Amino acid sequence: MVSIDAKTTVCAVLGHPIGHSLSPALHNAAFEALGLPLVYVAHDVAPGNVTRALEGIRVLGYRGLSITIPHKVEAMHGVDHVDAMAAGIGCINTVVNDHGRLLGSNSDGLGALGGLRDANANPDGKNVLILGSGGAARAIAITLARETEPRRITILGIELDELNRLISDVRHHATATVTGGQFTDASLRAALAETDILMHCSPIGMHPNEESSLVSPDMFRKGMVVFDAVYNPRRTKLLRDAQVAGCQTIEGIEMFLGQAAVQFELWTGRQAPRSVMRRVVEAHL
Amino acid sequence: MVSIDAKTTVCAVLGHPIGHSLSPALHNAAFEALGLPLVYVAHDVAPGNVTRALEGIRVLGYRGLSITIPHKVEAMHGVDHVDAMAAGIGCINTVVNDHGRLLGSNSDGLGALGGLRDANANPDGKNVLILGSGGAARAIAITLARETEPRRITILGIELDELNRLISDVRHHATATVTGGQFTDASLRAALAETDILMHCSPIGMHPNEESSLVSPDMFRKGMVVFDAVYNPRRTKLLRDAQVAGCQTIEGIEMFLGQAAVQFELWTGRQAPRSVMRRVVEAHL
Repeated sequence: MVSIDAKTTVCAVLGHPIGHSLSPALHNAAFEALGLPLVYVAHDVAPGNVTRALEGIRVLGYRGLSITIPHKVEAMHGVDHVDAMAAGIGCINTVVNDHGRLLGSNSDGLGALGGLRDANANPDGKNVLILGSGGAARAIAITLARETEPRRITILGIELDELNRLISDVRHHATATVTGGQFTDASLRAALAETDILMHCSPIGMHPNEESSLVSPDMFRKGMVVFDAVYNPRRTKLLRDAQVAGCQTIEGIEMFLGQAAVQFELWTGRQAPRSVMRRVVEAHL
Repeated sequence: MVSIDAKTTVCAVLGHPIGHSLSPALHNAAFEALGLPLVYVAHDVAPGNVTRALEGIRVLGYRGLSITIPHKVEAMHGVDHVDAMAAGIGCINTVVNDHGRLLGSNSDGLGALGGLRDANANPDGKNVLILGSGGAARAIAITLARETEPRRITILGIELDELNRLISDVRHHATATVTGGQFTDASLRAALAETDILMHCSPIGMHPNEESSLVSPDMFRKGMVVFDAVYNPRRTKLLRDAQVAGCQTIEGIEMFLGQAAVQFELWTGRQAPRSVMRRVVEAHL
């Protein structure tokens, strides 16, 4: 429940479709909790219209945007500046309107990193294994490469062109050793034998395929940290198996909450009320 | 207090400045009263940017707009269609987004006419005197000419070019006899001697000049209907003097409420909850 007057500033999410986004409920609850004169709405923008939508955002005086599927790449070409992290990832999920100058950034990987740090699972000095080479994998791999100092980052995927481009891009940003290759049962088993932190970034296990997992239960090692970018269901088969095997598990909603908290802080300059935001997401999932 | 999710559709007012507009409070209360999935915000748009703002409205999928000072003329050039009433008035205060096609109209005069009708003061067959030739006078004169059948419409003003243009324009739309001329004490007294309905459309009497009035108390005739477009204060000196003289008085907030109700009905297809809207305005004035 938001109180709106003529001084209320607007933020929004742009996507297509957008009707099921949790972001309006999440950010409005956060704005309200801090008593901020902001309101957050959702706009369904047709592909091809994103640059015109961003021009509208600028002249209408929106404070900021979340950008979601399928607009994260198209939006990158409609802003005035893209920061180095987002340029490395290759897309933006966040816009800040700084007095008419639109600044694009990407908080998806920071959201996942925040989830690791909140769980006292800092990647510094650790071996990190990333499964997948799509959007979530790119955001997480580039962010970990730039923001942390793992000993090694290994990436396994099945789309080889996409995978090799990601490995090459991550090497440009990382001080860590970066390796990778085709995902197979053997390559996964070999990599997991040396993995401290597993970041699962494929869609396997997502509703309605809730009994699927890339990782056989016997491959987990006790004490390993296992993160799943999938958040529907919250407890994927991957996380359930990992927990049984004595691993520390981190749910995908931590990434969703973390990326939203980073956006909130960019728009407002205030610390995000994470417990409020968590309650909203948990109430909807 | 508005509940917003990703299916909520947006309406807005565009103006400059806009921080003191009552429209967000008014329309949000009305949306909420009917349980409609709509929210209304305010955008401060710089002059010269209105066409780009309208393009943004279109691609962002807003349902409708209120257009206020100073954008009512500029906005007319950024929509796809202007109805005959608004074209006659020469500006728009309302936009409906009909699946990407922006329709401009003007509800200001209809708001004033609604105020007359609610007071059982229908102009049909009556002598109507309009004081002033600016925006409010144009909206009211053209609307009365098109929508009602007065016996005579007389317009007195001080800006002679503007006045003569308005008289000429009203003649194009009216079946009534349309006369007018320079505002003087003598011309006012002569016109009022035959006036059934006085529509005051100049800014005289507006805060902070609350003890000013164009009409001497001895000029009122008992039973005359006196409307004042000024709504700050609600009871202007004109209306107070008219009431003492036994006239029927209609406050400017009736015009404000009436134009908002027409907009609401265009955007929603539902009858506006006028009592809810009236309570919001009365609470703020």
